[in-house]
Amino acid sequence: MKNRQYLLASRPVGKPTRENWEYAETEVEGLGDNEVLVNVEYISLDPAMRGWMNEGKSYIEPVQIGEVMRAGGVGKVIESTDPNFSAGDYVYGQLGVQAVAKISTQGLHKVDPDLAPLPRYLGVLGMPGMTAYFGLLETGQPKDGETVVVSGAAGAVGSVVGQIAKIKGCRVVGIAGGKEKCDYLINELGFDAAIDYKNESVKDGLKSTCPDGVDVYFDNVGGDILDDVLTRINLRARIVICGAISQYNNTTEVKGPSNYLSLLVNRARMEGIVVFDNAKHYGKAAQEMAGWIAQGKLKAKEHVVEGLETFPETLMMLFEGENFGKLVLKVDS
Amino acid sequence: MKNRQYLLASRPVGKPTRENWEYAETEVEGLGDNEVLVNVEYISLDPAMRGWMNEGKSYIEPVQIGEVMRAGGVGKVIESTDPNFSAGDYVYGQLGVQAVAKISTQGLHKVDPDLAPLPRYLGVLGMPGMTAYFGLLETGQPKDGETVVVSGAAGAVGSVVGQIAKIKGCRVVGIAGGKEKCDYLINELGFDAAIDYKNESVKDGLKSTCPDGVDVYFDNVGGDILDDVLTRINLRARIVICGAISQYNNTTEVKGPSNYLSLLVNRARMEGIVVFDNAKHYGKAAQEMAGWIAQGKLKAKEHVVEGLETFPETLMMLFEGENFGKLVLKVDS
Repeated sequence: MKNRQYLLASRPVGKPTRENWEYAETEVEGLGDNEVLVNVEYISLDPAMRGWMNEGKSYIEPVQIGEVMRAGGVGKVIESTDPNFSAGDYVYGQLGVQAVAKISTQGLHKVDPDLAPLPRYLGVLGMPGMTAYFGLLETGQPKDGETVVVSGAAGAVGSVVGQIAKIKGCRVVGIAGGKEKCDYLINELGFDAAIDYKNESVKDGLKSTCPDGVDVYFDNVGGDILDDVLTRINLRARIVICGAISQYNNTTEVKGPSNYLSLLVNRARMEGIVVFDNAKHYGKAAQEMAGWIAQGKLKAKEHVVEGLETFPETLMMLFEGENFGKLVLKVDS
Repeated sequence: MKNRQYLLASRPVGKPTRENWEYAETEVEGLGDNEVLVNVEYISLDPAMRGWMNEGKSYIEPVQIGEVMRAGGVGKVIESTDPNFSAGDYVYGQLGVQAVAKISTQGLHKVDPDLAPLPRYLGVLGMPGMTAYFGLLETGQPKDGETVVVSGAAGAVGSVVGQIAKIKGCRVVGIAGGKEKCDYLINELGFDAAIDYKNESVKDGLKSTCPDGVDVYFDNVGGDILDDVLTRINLRARIVICGAISQYNNTTEVKGPSNYLSLLVNRARMEGIVVFDNAKHYGKAAQEMAGWIAQGKLKAKEHVVEGLETFPETLMMLFEGENFGKLVLKVDS
């Protein structure tokens, strides 16, 4: 059986290009114990992937040169040596950027294609949804009536953060790029206001949309926007550091937040999160979020691009802000 | 009755100079209700004073142009219209940079010159001690066996932070400038190790003195040292932002911590503190610290410079790292 894979060929300096990838056509090997063969249907593209391409200590091992690129994905089991999984089951797991995954069943779990379209298991019902849920509620600790600001607000994590904050009774302001995304946040997702960072000053936008200051900031982007928000935080504000997509392709030093002393002035807190820490509680969170979805309080949007071969270019859409909703790669059959 | 005062003449750009001050000889006015006249004996010189000279929103109002410079101080009451205070009482309060303070008794409290030398009420028994106590214990939350690093370690706050961390069973590493200070930290205060930032690489020093990483970092200095520590923090580390003396005289933007994404990787927290928030609990803290002093577990050092007139230059010793212990200005009589 044939497979198609993207292997990491070299570590990028700055933006990843085609040269950093090796597209390989390989033969699928036979299964060992407790393994499955999965026909990969959808692959999750996430900003964190940029970090996994770098060498050095992080919250997870880097992808090694010559390895299949790490990625979450959903697909259909076609062969199994684990009695808990059968051909025909749909599963979510770290399937990698490839058409067929031969993978241990450890860490794999089943998903139901009748309950939700498959790409949704990579978005609101997957890691981005969990990141939003735990990052906002546990670390951000929003209280009724507080102002919550989220960057990357039309993205997979940000859009869920904003909607959960609304459910919790907060005033919610999203920062996103372009009028279409900003309109979507307000008209479709019920955000109170949106700031279009591509066409207006974020500083001025925060002034006009957050007259009572910012109590919780959920940051997906870092850079100048983080610094702008720091000038508007309230006493005892909580800043959740989820990512810094503006900085991931830097060839120079990361821009540290020059206004970090606002933490001192306001006795505020900046705290990093990694979703995997909450793995034990995913079930409870998924149940609550499913309830919100059923009630129409939590909406989701996926941006599906077809063609495994397009992976190198499709991934870059994240860093140009070209995706609108959770970015998913559909494997052509 | 004659007074001598330092008024803020202009707002400094970068380092404050003589030109930013007006030395005034004035007449003391008569007392209003619930006021006292205090013969100021010792004036506290603190890094925070640099911030009070700037315009703009902070945790406290800026000193206005033409106003007496704000400063904590201890002195002897010479006249009172408040039945709770009598001539001869020694008091601590915001007495200002002047020889005589005509001041409301609100916020003033008595100190006992027989229990401790007066300058000590400006150090370990005053705001710096309280800052260390609450900043370390409430925000830093050190646990037995953890590694605590403190910068400005031979200063008024840092030296107390390190000693309290030792009392709590931590491994303690201090960062200070010069061999004399480093020797003092180890030999007199019982720190486990010291890094001399003036003569060695802080990064290398952290590597060798913190083989198990850093669990709590109490930061008084900001700048490159904060960035160096960020590369060595452990999972769920706590960084207490107490000050950033390296940045206070900047004429360019504050250097934000480029390595702040280490907070994400390590799910760590960076939190600012302002001592005044704990005012209700000063009494309890003072009692516990007095116990430690009596047991010889908590030592203090004051650096006393005599002569009110020297104030502009003596203040600058803080920013050059020239003080050794809590810097106090003794008013000449």
